[in-house]
Amino acid sequence: MSPDLTPTPQDKFTFGLWTVGFQGRDPFGAETRPPLDPTDTVRKLAELGAYGVCFHDDDLLPPEADDGERERIKGDFKKALDETGMKVSIATTNLFTHPVFKDGAFTANDREVRRYALQKVMRAIDLGAELGAPIYVFWGGREGVEADAAKPARDALERYREAIDFLCGYVRDRGYDMRFALEPKPNEPRGDIFLPTVGHMLAFIERLDHSDMVGVNPEVAHDTMAGLSFLHGVAQAIWAGKLFHIDLNAQRVGRYDQDFRFGAVGLKDAFFLVKLLEDSGYDGPRHFDAKPLRMESQDGVWDFAAGCMRTYLALKEKASTCGADSEIAAAEADAKVAELALDTVGAYTSDRADELLAEAHDLDSLGARECGNERLDQLAVDLILGLR
Amino acid sequence: MSPDLTPTPQDKFTFGLWTVGFQGRDPFGAETRPPLDPTDTVRKLAELGAYGVCFHDDDLLPPEADDGERERIKGDFKKALDETGMKVSIATTNLFTHPVFKDGAFTANDREVRRYALQKVMRAIDLGAELGAPIYVFWGGREGVEADAAKPARDALERYREAIDFLCGYVRDRGYDMRFALEPKPNEPRGDIFLPTVGHMLAFIERLDHSDMVGVNPEVAHDTMAGLSFLHGVAQAIWAGKLFHIDLNAQRVGRYDQDFRFGAVGLKDAFFLVKLLEDSGYDGPRHFDAKPLRMESQDGVWDFAAGCMRTYLALKEKASTCGADSEIAAAEADAKVAELALDTVGAYTSDRADELLAEAHDLDSLGARECGNERLDQLAVDLILGLR
Amino acid sequence: MSPDLTPTPQDKFTFGLWTVGFQGRDPFGAETRPPLDPTDTVRKLAELGAYGVCFHDDDLLPPEADDGERERIKGDFKKALDETGMKVSIATTNLFTHPVFKDGAFTANDREVRRYALQKVMRAIDLGAELGAPIYVFWGGREGVEADAAKPARDALERYREAIDFLCGYVRDRGYDMRFALEPKPNEPRGDIFLPTVGHMLAFIERLDHSDMVGVNPEVAHDTMAGLSFLHGVAQAIWAGKLFHIDLNAQRVGRYDQDFRFGAVGLKDAFFLVKLLEDSGYDGPRHFDAKPLRMESQDGVWDFAAGCMRTYLALKEKASTCGADSEIAAAEADAKVAELALDTVGAYTSDRADELLAEAHDLDSLGARECGNERLDQLAVDLILGLR
Amino acid sequence: MSPDLTPTPQDKFTFGLWTVGFQGRDPFGAETRPPLDPTDTVRKLAELGAYGVCFHDDDLLPPEADDGERERIKGDFKKALDETGMKVSIATTNLFTHPVFKDGAFTANDREVRRYALQKVMRAIDLGAELGAPIYVFWGGREGVEADAAKPARDALERYREAIDFLCGYVRDRGYDMRFALEPKPNEPRGDIFLPTVGHMLAFIERLDHSDMVGVNPEVAHDTMAGLSFLHGVAQAIWAGKLFHIDLNAQRVGRYDQDFRFGAVGLKDAFFLVKLLEDSGYDGPRHFDAKPLRMESQDGVWDFAAGCMRTYLALKEKASTCGADSEIAAAEADAKVAELALDTVGAYTSDRADELLAEAHDLDSLGARECGNERLDQLAVDLILGLR
Repeated sequence: MSPDLTPTPQDKFTFGLWTVGFQGRDPFGAETRPPLDPTDTVRKLAELGAYGVCFHDDDLLPPEADDGERERIKGDFKKALDETGMKVSIATTNLFTHPVFKDGAFTANDREVRRYALQKVMRAIDLGAELGAPIYVFWGGREGVEADAAKPARDALERYREAIDFLCGYVRDRGYDMRFALEPKPNEPRGDIFLPTVGHMLAFIERLDHSDMVGVNPEVAHDTMAGLSFLHGVAQAIWAGKLFHIDLNAQRVGRYDQDFRFGAVGLKDAFFLVKLLEDSGYDGPRHFDAKPLRMESQDGVWDFAAGCMRTYLALKEKASTCGADSEIAAAEADAKVAELALDTVGAYTSDRADELLAEAHDLDSLGARECGNERLDQLAVDLILGLR
Repeated sequence: MSPDLTPTPQDKFTFGLWTVGFQGRDPFGAETRPPLDPTDTVRKLAELGAYGVCFHDDDLLPPEADDGERERIKGDFKKALDETGMKVSIATTNLFTHPVFKDGAFTANDREVRRYALQKVMRAIDLGAELGAPIYVFWGGREGVEADAAKPARDALERYREAIDFLCGYVRDRGYDMRFALEPKPNEPRGDIFLPTVGHMLAFIERLDHSDMVGVNPEVAHDTMAGLSFLHGVAQAIWAGKLFHIDLNAQRVGRYDQDFRFGAVGLKDAFFLVKLLEDSGYDGPRHFDAKPLRMESQDGVWDFAAGCMRTYLALKEKASTCGADSEIAAAEADAKVAELALDTVGAYTSDRADELLAEAHDLDSLGARECGNERLDQLAVDLILGLR
Repeated sequence: MSPDLTPTPQDKFTFGLWTVGFQGRDPFGAETRPPLDPTDTVRKLAELGAYGVCFHDDDLLPPEADDGERERIKGDFKKALDETGMKVSIATTNLFTHPVFKDGAFTANDREVRRYALQKVMRAIDLGAELGAPIYVFWGGREGVEADAAKPARDALERYREAIDFLCGYVRDRGYDMRFALEPKPNEPRGDIFLPTVGHMLAFIERLDHSDMVGVNPEVAHDTMAGLSFLHGVAQAIWAGKLFHIDLNAQRVGRYDQDFRFGAVGLKDAFFLVKLLEDSGYDGPRHFDAKPLRMESQDGVWDFAAGCMRTYLALKEKASTCGADSEIAAAEADAKVAELALDTVGAYTSDRADELLAEAHDLDSLGARECGNERLDQLAVDLILGLR
Repeated sequence: MSPDLTPTPQDKFTFGLWTVGFQGRDPFGAETRPPLDPTDTVRKLAELGAYGVCFHDDDLLPPEADDGERERIKGDFKKALDETGMKVSIATTNLFTHPVFKDGAFTANDREVRRYALQKVMRAIDLGAELGAPIYVFWGGREGVEADAAKPARDALERYREAIDFLCGYVRDRGYDMRFALEPKPNEPRGDIFLPTVGHMLAFIERLDHSDMVGVNPEVAHDTMAGLSFLHGVAQAIWAGKLFHIDLNAQRVGRYDQDFRFGAVGLKDAFFLVKLLEDSGYDGPRHFDAKPLRMESQDGVWDFAAGCMRTYLALKEKASTCGADSEIAAAEADAKVAELALDTVGAYTSDRADELLAEAHDLDSLGARECGNERLDQLAVDLILGLR
């Protein structure tokens, strides 16, 4: 009997306006789909079982809109949220489309550009606060370089730090109940983007004035582009208490930013990711920062959105059965999985050091022990394939 | 007139015993070269102009050697150091060759293995201290996983932290004047290695009890395997005050660990790396953690070692001329390179926020500005090619 | 009710002696397992349901064995084959382990090495013929280069061609009923290996004197290392009538040669590969050229072998149900999958050209058509996950 | 004394209208530069020393232009060519921008799209012929797939073959003196593009009806994206007599299509590529299919174009000095480079087989020989760095 895989708001699935609203433009092709109206998006996603939506400032409010138009759009949007119960999960700023940001925003060599970028974010933070976003996301897509001679990395990091520190100050000064989530990406659209992985971003955050209010927003596609284990990146973020938000999608290693439907590539990796999120008690949004294939028309867009949620739920269901599977439990015991949670020695004391130094070990027999990883891994494959 | 590219100890070039001593074994082939005697290596490297050598415990002292044999080897080695003036730049532990470490050392699921790993490191630290190593390097080559079901990453990070904390305690307790440098690598020999990049390692260090005595040892090949900008990784380490040591070699992106002669691939990247190291005031060893090609016989090994140093010096010489090159200076000015070092706004105050919000910007003209990166980058290429 | 996933010889599963016999040595570690006796391997694999085995000359006959020893080993091996009904599926030559091949075999710069390589292959072909191998595989693992200055690629291709042509002549002259399968790989153990992908190899074969008797032996891990679609490579080989053999395993993109258990990574890709093989009528061996994880002891080796076959059978079972799944059929119809098999226009004639030129097309409506790929892809995911 | 690096038409440098004319749009950003007028481009490139230009049909003639407008544009363009002496080096078709091609052109599942694609190419071939293009290029950027279920690769190859065969027929029927050059690419904008590398394309060409008139157009960025040796791909194309055209630029491995200025990445690879082209007698255009950085304004575009040519000439100059460099010659002799050009054994005869089988080889001493690759490679580095 199949499990029920119908999404509900309790599942906390969210979509950016720019995801289902992606019109299909790519470096070699024009748009294939008309724009979506944000309120229609809210209603349709609610119908599909989503929990909320999110947006860049310019997704919701066209830059050229006058004040009246902006108020009207916000009113309509709030009305759609109220009527559907949908939440604004995060807000963020578009610091990448306009030519002004062609050399970066917070790290543009031109100081006026850097100042304008801060201004744009401050206004967008106000918008996010007004619409109830508890998290503000920063993706520094243009903060990077193609010509290393032109942008000293240490100066760039210093400007980046200055910008985030300043904006933390702004949020606190305004009294907003809002935390920041920084999103790393290794490259594209810049040759090399600063703070390219979850690890670099976590390290950067430690150098901030208000590091307590800043965490990360890892994206499957981004660390996967560099062929890193996304699972390990997310685990390190959780271990550090810094997983504030997550972007789910799919990506092949070593390619352009694909943003495929969640689970479309890497089903086993997706399984372990879902298991980690669920086991860890992460209670934030499961955000699908993915794009429907360019070839799709409107029906395909909603198939895409439904598919993201369906695959997540299917993997969550599978993950939830592990505990009760006695063969898996036995294989875990053989592989000594639980033993890794035990202290090796505890905090340093001279006595413990002496004790360690005095121990004798039979290396040959220890080296010949069974580890049982092939069997345990095959059981995971069986579970994913629906064979158990 | 060509610059003098003869290495001297002042250049601080070092080699691991395992580098020039690499016998050429690879996953598909047997050794092609006989072993080198460590004291011969010291003398030959001194002759070539190196500053020092480094070693894993087992490189210097065969695990099967008895106490008398160990003392004899250490005596001979110290004698060679004394006679040549060569230094021991770092020491480290082999936690990867013996089958006992097949599932990890500090993060092995088997607790006895973890305890043995600590014991082995403590003894190797004693050896390093005895031979004057100011830095102790940790490369956790087996700390990883192929089957995610078998090793929860958060538990592994906790054990990793426990191990480094304990060993910091040991060094302090023993009163050694020694700092730790942790070396990240994304994969190989494990499917995924924990703490895969400079960024992840920097973030990990912040969670340690004695993080002040722990920095990183980035390796060109390692971050490059994942296609990340090694330059940016090193810059972030310097920015964080954490560049304690560096491993220089060459590597193509997305391949097995190649450990090529420094500069053999990626000349432009190597140039900017050398420039960063020299400009930053980094005064630690320039360690060539590279391997002579398996096909080489003994002459080729020394050609390799000489080549590593020669290319470094050639690039250093080129980097040193940038400042006096008026065309480069003009191009840097056009690209506003120095402007990136200026504060964007300074620390947060309400007044500064108001000022920023009140500013008007002409986005069209700002977006149309010349950035001059193609020209500046071409000048760097010209410099590297010896055209200026 | 689960399908029966017990392998039988009809499934044509084969293993190389070097696969289950892999002792776990890697670039950073010593052997973790004792050697397996070839006859034990034959018996154990037969017991697990395999169809056959294969070998390099040196896997079966140690190079140092004298004639008597060689005859004894061959006798024992034949006896094990006879008693179990196991077949020798292919034979091949070890042209990579001995230092003599450090600069290549057929493409070594040293002519004597090239001549010795031919001699070794001729003897190994005799052995393969004696033991009934219908296919002879060539993996040119050392045919490559790290220093482009040292080995002109066009000369190397010419020597490669000369070698294969000569060996085709030998097989024909000896009257062996044997075809050749050439196995491409992009890199490792050489920096760049010649004829790096299925495509390059197929093109090379067209330049051979007896190209009819030469096809390819694609390996999942090899084209996947380069991030290419292995599915498309195999499809092109089948399309060209050149799929003579196949090596199944698993690999992450952009890494060292991992040779994981089939299906351990890339389940969806594995599904489409199995479907292609089964749908195409390919009737050769399904060879698992994979390696048990180094950490495993002997039980884990057989878990590994069983897992390879189990996952193949599970995916084959899933693939076989596609035809009878009406929802999948409907989605395929919406995506016009079958329409791709129709001629676009047929062979060139002036009339057809005129007809084409005269046609009018409504590009806007054609551009707005639904393609239904998201839905069809999600159905494939559902099938793989066991949800249908 | 520096060599003269001023380009002249004899150097055969060409640029596509879409290269210097690239307006800077990328997946995350709007255009940063105004369009260039084709005739201005011709004049400016002539001034910089280029030999010719090339174009997609839509680059020159806007799809919406009426007949009068088209004639006017062509007239102006021819006039600019005549006045400057610039040539049309190739022509090609835009089969990727319009939504109609969202699922492919020659391999679209929809048959009407396939027919329209043929029509569009036929018209564009007429245009190319009218403007004197001796080569017609095909880049099948949309011929690929994201959902393997939706597009059987063998059917796609069959349609691809049908299309090229038909168009060969058309060119012959029309009596055009024109050959085809097919351009492979592994991915982007499609998840996987058919015929992803030089190798796959060369193999495909062998299956065509008029394979003699069809060759390849390799592009640095494309094979490099997959981390393959572009040098070896081009060498194989030359070896097969199939290098009809070449696209020069720069690219980092495993990333989005970067199309950097020639030499901006991979200087050593660029050196060996230039050396191969010059040594091989290739006399076709050196086409820079690269894009100025998005951040550049108009001055930067021409800096970019000048830089492409300058680096090529600098590397060509260096390559030309190899022959007269006695130290390089000695190192080549030590590495037995010339010996690779000698027959190993010649064509098969029984006598030669017997002779080979009878030879005795001292494997130990042969395995211990010096290969001298480190030294030869370092000399190449020295040459590139301007140290010799």
